[in-house]
Amino acid sequence: MVRHILEYPKEVHNTVNRYKHQAVYALTTIHTIINTSPVLHVSFTPSPTDPFPVILPLIGQMASFSRPSASLGDSLDCYLHGYVSSRIMNLSRASGGKGLPICIAASKVDGLGTSAPSLPPLLLASSNTPKVLTLTPNSHNYNYRSAVLFGHATLVEDLEEKLWAMELITNSVVPDRWRHTRVPPNAAEMQSTQILKVKIDSGSAKVREGVPNDEKGDLGDKNVLGAVWTGVLPLYEQFGEPVPGPYNEVSEVPAHVLVYKETTNKTNFEYAEAAARKDAPVKKKEPGEEED
Amino acid sequence: MVRHILEYPKEVHNTVNRYKHQAVYALTTIHTIINTSPVLHVSFTPSPTDPFPVILPLIGQMASFSRPSASLGDSLDCYLHGYVSSRIMNLSRASGGKGLPICIAASKVDGLGTSAPSLPPLLLASSNTPKVLTLTPNSHNYNYRSAVLFGHATLVEDLEEKLWAMELITNSVVPDRWRHTRVPPNAAEMQSTQILKVKIDSGSAKVREGVPNDEKGDLGDKNVLGAVWTGVLPLYEQFGEPVPGPYNEVSEVPAHVLVYKETTNKTNFEYAEAAARKDAPVKKKEPGEEED
Repeated sequence: MVRHILEYPKEVHNTVNRYKHQAVYALTTIHTIINTSPVLHVSFTPSPTDPFPVILPLIGQMASFSRPSASLGDSLDCYLHGYVSSRIMNLSRASGGKGLPICIAASKVDGLGTSAPSLPPLLLASSNTPKVLTLTPNSHNYNYRSAVLFGHATLVEDLEEKLWAMELITNSVVPDRWRHTRVPPNAAEMQSTQILKVKIDSGSAKVREGVPNDEKGDLGDKNVLGAVWTGVLPLYEQFGEPVPGPYNEVSEVPAHVLVYKETTNKTNFEYAEAAARKDAPVKKKEPGEEED
Repeated sequence: MVRHILEYPKEVHNTVNRYKHQAVYALTTIHTIINTSPVLHVSFTPSPTDPFPVILPLIGQMASFSRPSASLGDSLDCYLHGYVSSRIMNLSRASGGKGLPICIAASKVDGLGTSAPSLPPLLLASSNTPKVLTLTPNSHNYNYRSAVLFGHATLVEDLEEKLWAMELITNSVVPDRWRHTRVPPNAAEMQSTQILKVKIDSGSAKVREGVPNDEKGDLGDKNVLGAVWTGVLPLYEQFGEPVPGPYNEVSEVPAHVLVYKETTNKTNFEYAEAAARKDAPVKKKEPGEEED
């Protein structure tokens, strides 16, 4: 079962014309997975003497402060927000300008197939792909989207960039939310908010979508075919009805919240349903693809 | 805004009677988050000379082979499956018996609050918690559940344990699926399937659920209260109708698939809706809790 391996072209800055079509496709897919994940898992090594890497859940978005109109297919930085302890801040500062080496991962599962051993389960991602039920545990699968990025993180200390990033990230949670709240942040809030900017070295994405497929041997076995139901269980995230809080005084739920709910629900549903029906990926090896 | 920090008690083996109530609660929460995540993010350091840790998405379950009837509140190992490259296998073997040091993370977002800078956004998790919309970007929040574990990974080479783990993991994707497929795996499938067993050193979980809360200053500001809708957008994963595949010959969708779909949908929905209505967490500092 193939997975589509999309690489961050190392030469993207130099040869965007030559690899233009491929580069845009790859970066767009990777950046979309990152930007539509509610939470990113970010790993770093706290100390050379500590064998354990640490994973923190943070929120983040791919964007460009210097080129704010850049598209998802362009080279972008990753802005991260979350609880940035003094440990990470010290590590970022101590890196001498280049930044703390980190790995960022995001996965979206779009569907369920009693995903089983072997090939596809690596390529798991959450929330918009169907589970794929096949004849054997080995050929089961998730439909999923997964992205991994490597880069160097530094603290954003320029106030203008920090404020821009705070708005970017707030709006990534609910689009347009920033201006509907009490802004700008006060001095204490600015002080207590830490934003990391990650310059990306490399990255890749893996995507599986489609109907089940099975090994020829099992497909030719009438006993197995007659006994095992095969298909896809689509899986998608849905928002429920907005629930007003205990000190809410605004009677109507604002349009920006309702629109976000409706469009997200529709998009998520349609993606998962479509992924459940697409032709199965063709089994072929990509150049450089590791053996399963 | 508090988050509930639940630790893997280090003395769990020795003092289960003394910390019994606390230990069970903490481990149960951590293990439930791990076991209900479609995908786990697992980080390790490929080499002491490479500054970047690597994150792989793998599927896994907490369980005990030596004590299969152990409950979620007991000390458990984590079994992982996915594409285990020769690199990881070599690293696991080269670790000299103790195993490769790894970090495992799982996050579930249960709801949306134009989660913003500062405190809570760290505590993000996906899929069953409402988003919490508050008055300021700073006080926004996700309702979420997040777990992080540290341990040592070794390859499972005992055939009986490997087969048990393959069934465990297959059934974690769709309960009871294993026996409804063509089993047992053949020799080639056994050969190509790699299972990692992770003995856990320590871990913790962070959970936020509840209605919004905001700083006193904003709550006392009538202009702000009159302008900003505050509440929770519940978020939950739902399965769609099963979609039969192109070579399916079984006309009725089996009960185990339908039951799984219905019960999961109901559980996910109810959790997110309840989390959207609970009292806001009380702001207090836990011993050892880092400052935001």
